[in-house]
Amino acid sequence: MKLNVLFTPGEIEPGALGGRTAVVIDVLRATSTMVEALANGARAVYPRETTEAALELRQNLDREDLLLCGERRGRRIEGFDLGNSPAEYTPERVRDHALIMTTTNGTAAILAAGQADRAFVGSVLNLTAVADAVVEAGEPTTILCAAREGAFALEDALCAGMIVMRLESTVEDPLELSDAAIAARALAERWRTEIERAMRATQASRDLTEVGHGDDVAFCAQVDRHRAVPELRDRQLVLP
Amino acid sequence: MKLNVLFTPGEIEPGALGGRTAVVIDVLRATSTMVEALANGARAVYPRETTEAALELRQNLDREDLLLCGERRGRRIEGFDLGNSPAEYTPERVRDHALIMTTTNGTAAILAAGQADRAFVGSVLNLTAVADAVVEAGEPTTILCAAREGAFALEDALCAGMIVMRLESTVEDPLELSDAAIAARALAERWRTEIERAMRATQASRDLTEVGHGDDVAFCAQVDRHRAVPELRDRQLVLP
Repeated sequence: MKLNVLFTPGEIEPGALGGRTAVVIDVLRATSTMVEALANGARAVYPRETTEAALELRQNLDREDLLLCGERRGRRIEGFDLGNSPAEYTPERVRDHALIMTTTNGTAAILAAGQADRAFVGSVLNLTAVADAVVEAGEPTTILCAAREGAFALEDALCAGMIVMRLESTVEDPLELSDAAIAARALAERWRTEIERAMRATQASRDLTEVGHGDDVAFCAQVDRHRAVPELRDRQLVLP
Repeated sequence: MKLNVLFTPGEIEPGALGGRTAVVIDVLRATSTMVEALANGARAVYPRETTEAALELRQNLDREDLLLCGERRGRRIEGFDLGNSPAEYTPERVRDHALIMTTTNGTAAILAAGQADRAFVGSVLNLTAVADAVVEAGEPTTILCAAREGAFALEDALCAGMIVMRLESTVEDPLELSDAAIAARALAERWRTEIERAMRATQASRDLTEVGHGDDVAFCAQVDRHRAVPELRDRQLVLP
């Protein structure tokens, strides 16, 4: 299986995702929150890049079951129903709702993955299920890290490496890894028994703590909490 | 000391290098070759982004001591005096010459580092000397990896991590590391006793082997072969 990792969305070359399976990762917190929401019964998540696009979509869809979700600078957007803490997305709050969501890094990366043949959303919460979905969808595969304002984010690289490790133990043929996939695997091997501790050392974790969302780090560090693997179809994320 | 690492030039935000010390790394092979050339007596290296800019500079400088150097797709540019194998840059060949050099990834990254207060060229060949130069030049510091056509290159990340390790053992105050600096250090710790082996697993190494320059990998993996630290001044690299 041919497998590459892009640590930043800026590394996507035009057209490079065509013919590939993509997995988008934004561990702190967008993809963790999306996995939690769909696993807890949300019907769909509509990722949108801007607050304006989110508001416009709500107007166009004009349905009763919509929730507006998202953050800027880590905080819930004013007037929105939910922020970007996965713990907010309880079954009571999200079941049978459709979520329109905009976040600083994650939503743009997910929409960019729309160029791929199939695009999944990954996080620590659904690691093993994502690896299984990738095996089923077929190679070549690109794991795309949402990163942090264009710069490398350790928590995303770690999660990518954990998926590489899962694939390595599942797939019979040897993996053909890009340089970044080799590096991600090495990082995951280094911190495999202390994921939460590694995540607490990141810039994203420090920023979250500063705005009062430090608890989200422990939440997002839970390995294989869910089997749900959201897939992007027609610019919305759904469970198969 | 505040220290960040950029794994790709695409991560340089406009103006972000101002007020910083920068170290540019393109282990396979541009910065290794530049270190070798200057350590072996070249008077200066003029990095230029394109073949055209290199030819134009030769015409403008109109001096006897110039050598045209560089590669495209790993091979010496037609009509140029030297390619991009450090082993070509012997004292006999380069002493008292000025070198105009253009390579696929390295030269653009070096010129981008011109925004920094001071900009050095680093490689495995001059690791410890670069760390010493950074300590002397002062923080904050950015290590900029030239990468490979915009994508993460493991050999550059490893070299960046080795510089982080050197700084950690030199500087008294604790280092304030960015996510990428933490990751680079972890990669260097992982492969510290087998640098050449790690470098042989990279895409750059496979590409070099394919065009007959596989021997350069072992050359560029030599730790602390030189004390020379090229510095960028007025768009040329010189030794202090």
